[in-house]
Amino acid sequence: MTTAAIRVSEIFGPTIQGEGVLIGQPTVFVRTGGCDYRCTWCDTLHAVDGEYREQWRPMSVDEIWSEVRRLSGGVPLTVSLSGGNPAIQPLGPLIDRGHGEGYRFALETQGSVARDWFANLDTLVLSPKPPSSGMATDFAQLDDCLVMAAGRPMTVLKIVVFDDHDYAYAKDVARRYPALPIYLQPGNHTPPPPEDDGATVDIEGVMNRMLWLVDKVTGDKWFDARVLPQLHVLLWGNRRGV
Amino acid sequence: MTTAAIRVSEIFGPTIQGEGVLIGQPTVFVRTGGCDYRCTWCDTLHAVDGEYREQWRPMSVDEIWSEVRRLSGGVPLTVSLSGGNPAIQPLGPLIDRGHGEGYRFALETQGSVARDWFANLDTLVLSPKPPSSGMATDFAQLDDCLVMAAGRPMTVLKIVVFDDHDYAYAKDVARRYPALPIYLQPGNHTPPPPEDDGATVDIEGVMNRMLWLVDKVTGDKWFDARVLPQLHVLLWGNRRGV
Repeated sequence: MTTAAIRVSEIFGPTIQGEGVLIGQPTVFVRTGGCDYRCTWCDTLHAVDGEYREQWRPMSVDEIWSEVRRLSGGVPLTVSLSGGNPAIQPLGPLIDRGHGEGYRFALETQGSVARDWFANLDTLVLSPKPPSSGMATDFAQLDDCLVMAAGRPMTVLKIVVFDDHDYAYAKDVARRYPALPIYLQPGNHTPPPPEDDGATVDIEGVMNRMLWLVDKVTGDKWFDARVLPQLHVLLWGNRRGV
Repeated sequence: MTTAAIRVSEIFGPTIQGEGVLIGQPTVFVRTGGCDYRCTWCDTLHAVDGEYREQWRPMSVDEIWSEVRRLSGGVPLTVSLSGGNPAIQPLGPLIDRGHGEGYRFALETQGSVARDWFANLDTLVLSPKPPSSGMATDFAQLDDCLVMAAGRPMTVLKIVVFDDHDYAYAKDVARRYPALPIYLQPGNHTPPPPEDDGATVDIEGVMNRMLWLVDKVTGDKWFDARVLPQLHVLLWGNRRGV
């Protein structure tokens, strides 16, 4: 029996998860290649833009799993499936394979494509994109993601916020899904160009946006929201593979 | 009916919780005065050392609650009970009062004093102190804290780590309580003297200790541990009241 190949941009770790609900947790990242979105501030263009397609390797479940096991020394941990949009890849068999060995799976997606294997995840992070991304949210698709997840994985929202419009969008999304925990994340306005791994990040700018966001949330008495920066950006700047 | 007064060092917020399991969550802090420990690297000496006793105000539950309600605008959120060691204060009636209005309570303590009202908390953070603190852990007392909590609040361990000895201690504690989630936190070696609110923190030193700790944990394949810095120190340095 063969399964469809998965387009992989990079596999790295273990390092700690830098953002959202699993922040601080040792994780191996499987970043897939390809995305149905083109966000203006995308910080992983090397996994999104077709220009970098030749760097995406079609890999079998066996090949990917062998690399995850090597990196983790065969000790179960959380595998983060990210992208690009990992939902456009056939990841169901990979999740089943890892679960058989006690690994856990988190997936992060904008929620534009729903898959029945979402129900097999341990954590589903839905990260619909705010106005500053230049993308419009298809809420029917986002609803479908929740239908497919069927309440089985821990499901949370994560919204990147750059400005007041994004903040208003985040509040709208929270009102639409009042039962989902929501994480707000200040945007990184200095994402690296894909060919420049060492591009300097404007830490002070990110920090100022974080402080602004904390003030917004507490000033609004929006006490159900959680506000977290991208810890990996504070620790490692824009470097890849950490 | 009167209840015993609670010695309060400061009440502030809402701001986000900067560390541990509730990181990023909007919180009002009630810091009590007084501690049965004297850690070498204590970062809240103004709530610990008897020298600052005249700054601790004996407050009734009504007085404290009135201030928490004022700060939060009467909108329920998480109240963090910290110190000093808040477990040496009679906090049970305060917790009951807040619960009646839908507020949640987290308590952080070294676990040297067990109280029956621990079972009424929403979150119990047990933070036994590693060797670098100069304090010895009484594990019978720490066990008692779990007995008193009776499995009702979400209970987690948080260990501050400065060096290899502290790291080994953290592993020992994790082995003793395998069912408890554990958070490791790089120590801040530049805590402010209480009279200098604006003392500069050595961010680079804290960051380097964080990177070292991530390497230790991932190198050891200790994938159940979570590693988080004190976000408030990165955002605000050593300033108080944020």
